[in-house]
Amino acid sequence: MSILVVGSIAYDTIETPAGKIDDALGGSTLYFSAAASLFTDVNVVGVVGSDFEKEALGFLKARDVNFDGLYVEEGKTFRWGGRYHKNMNQRDTLFTDLNVFETFEPNIPEQYKNSDYIFLANIDPVLQLHVLEQVKKPKLVVLDTMNLWIDIRREALEEVVCKSDIVIINDEELMQFTGEDNFVKAAKKIIEMGPSKLVIKRGEYGALLYSNDTFFFAPAFPLEKVVDPTGAGDTFAGGFLGFLASQEVHDENSLRSALVYGCTTASFTVEDFSLDCLREISKEGLEERFAEFKKMMVF
Amino acid sequence: MSILVVGSIAYDTIETPAGKIDDALGGSTLYFSAAASLFTDVNVVGVVGSDFEKEALGFLKARDVNFDGLYVEEGKTFRWGGRYHKNMNQRDTLFTDLNVFETFEPNIPEQYKNSDYIFLANIDPVLQLHVLEQVKKPKLVVLDTMNLWIDIRREALEEVVCKSDIVIINDEELMQFTGEDNFVKAAKKIIEMGPSKLVIKRGEYGALLYSNDTFFFAPAFPLEKVVDPTGAGDTFAGGFLGFLASQEVHDENSLRSALVYGCTTASFTVEDFSLDCLREISKEGLEERFAEFKKMMVF
Repeated sequence: MSILVVGSIAYDTIETPAGKIDDALGGSTLYFSAAASLFTDVNVVGVVGSDFEKEALGFLKARDVNFDGLYVEEGKTFRWGGRYHKNMNQRDTLFTDLNVFETFEPNIPEQYKNSDYIFLANIDPVLQLHVLEQVKKPKLVVLDTMNLWIDIRREALEEVVCKSDIVIINDEELMQFTGEDNFVKAAKKIIEMGPSKLVIKRGEYGALLYSNDTFFFAPAFPLEKVVDPTGAGDTFAGGFLGFLASQEVHDENSLRSALVYGCTTASFTVEDFSLDCLREISKEGLEERFAEFKKMMVF
Repeated sequence: MSILVVGSIAYDTIETPAGKIDDALGGSTLYFSAAASLFTDVNVVGVVGSDFEKEALGFLKARDVNFDGLYVEEGKTFRWGGRYHKNMNQRDTLFTDLNVFETFEPNIPEQYKNSDYIFLANIDPVLQLHVLEQVKKPKLVVLDTMNLWIDIRREALEEVVCKSDIVIINDEELMQFTGEDNFVKAAKKIIEMGPSKLVIKRGEYGALLYSNDTFFFAPAFPLEKVVDPTGAGDTFAGGFLGFLASQEVHDENSLRSALVYGCTTASFTVEDFSLDCLREISKEGLEERFAEFKKMMVF
């Protein structure tokens, strides 16, 4: 079943120890779609400027990513610049030019309002709430966020957390949001707020799932060559929710497989700049790495 | 089969967000023995001062930990003081009084020289080499070390790494020792030096095993209450090698189980100060948590 994703579309300028790219295709929505479309159809809602080259979306359209909800506004597309440190775990933001993204209003096209699966990518929680007001009766709402919204939009963020089924958050943000210094306690706090499941992203250490009062852990796939970590989190979410949307039952076992699929898709993202590696992978390549992954987790 | 362990015995003064203890029993040798003795006999070589209260070792002796190699020297026992930060991942050393440990000569008692399993706990690699010169034909030599020896004893450390079968090291030290910034490349470098297996400790994120050209990952057991992380690494090594020494075959599967047993024993250590939690646990309690652990890793 198809997924509705609402978030950013950007041109990224990125420096890593492996090299540099200027104005490359990026944004949470596109990373998510590139991963999720390996499993199911994806409907995008986002905004770009009049400078955006739509032809670049061809490979996503070929994978049944639908862009009826792509608004083109007069002006420039959102641009982000960042520089990664030597160990790739830390980065400095060099610039954030919101441009047309500053006044983004996520109006959901009529034909998307019955979506069963919703991914609220990392945007202002006020806008995330606005998305939820427009959709009818989703089966599963998955929420991503970041430290900025915890700082400046706590009230709206708390409201959207309460209305979500699964929260995806990194470990630092989880501690910041809950005020806890232990992730087990923090996880329980989130579940008390409403969501039935929590996914904690741990970067190079993988991710963990908290559901049904228990944890499940997936490591990050071991890679010799990491080129650009940008978009790893959104690709993770795409693999995770993409797999779930392709399954009829969302039991503990399918949730655990989804977590490993999330880590699998993320592992491709970081092997090249921008969406370059995700553009090339096939379902077969993905399944091959998933099988390799599974072998590293059994005993 | 029994294990020979050579390392420190100390009185620790520790402050954590959970409280403070003065002159509590500690040192790599004792943490290791408390964990390994849940699986097999352990023979200790170490040194204490004339102020040491031998009665405190009673619970270890009851578990077949042998102290024929415990030397008592005129003077004070090694003392270490540390203070942990709020998140427990970082600590400051407040003092290190080597005392009798400064002139420690690890002379191996005759009856220990045929040991099959050797754990070289974190001491000067020159002394670790001296241990290896004295033992006859060990089946498995497991090495632990730290950043200090990478800085000031690189040559001796390289020699002892070459002579070991399994190196246990934390991720930062692995990068420092190999000069790599990618753990996959770093792991391969260690294997090229001689050891057939490498264990990378990742603190709160667990541990990973590299052997037979493949990785296996074990998370840290999720705990709501962490009281004192001191000794977690040595307990991990004790659970890991203790389990291996209790097995006839050291194939990939028993190595993977050993890694999870290592994480399981370490999870008890951090739940209380000093050896307090390890003193209390039974083999049944350990197996129960191991089973719980396994459930969190299957999919």
